[in-house]
Amino acid sequence: MSMSRKYVEVVVSRTKSVSDYVLDIITLMNQGFDEVKIKGLGREISKAVDVYNSLKSRMENGIELKDVQIGTDKERKRTSYILITVVRKY
Amino acid sequence: MSMSRKYVEVVVSRTKSVSDYVLDIITLMNQGFDEVKIKGLGREISKAVDVYNSLKSRMENGIELKDVQIGTDKERKRTSYILITVVRKY
Repeated sequence: MSMSRKYVEVVVSRTKSVSDYVLDIITLMNQGFDEVKIKGLGREISKAVDVYNSLKSRMENGIELKDVQIGTDKERKRTSYILITVVRKY
Repeated sequence: MSMSRKYVEVVVSRTKSVSDYVLDIITLMNQGFDEVKIKGLGREISKAVDVYNSLKSRMENGIELKDVQIGTDKERKRTSYILITVVRKY
């Protein structure tokens, strides 16, 4: 991974729709963020995966799934998280 | 990966608790399955991650997270899935 890569983290919440997040991520990528980390906590883990799948169906080969991490949030014990890293291809 | 590795897939549903799945998986591993794939579909993706975290907190170094896949289920279009592969260490 290049050290100069610009990345941004998007935390998925209940209040916004999947499409809202997809639009946010596409906008961030157009603003020059090569790498976007989609984070979902607890019940929002499923939604974070929905955001990734919706983004993938729109961007197709324009993005690549780089990494998927799962675990327990350090600050909030017993809260599961997912962290999905996508990179822009062109 | 050894070709002789025995694996089993556990599909997480709404009806059973996280603890039930953890017990199922420990039982399967004791029966000789070295590799367990935890699958969650749609809303059950969050629960699949909860199962992994609960299993990890109980087994600690006894298991290792081998792989996390996310995507769209081929049979049910627009349904997101997660597939978490854990291997038994000893």
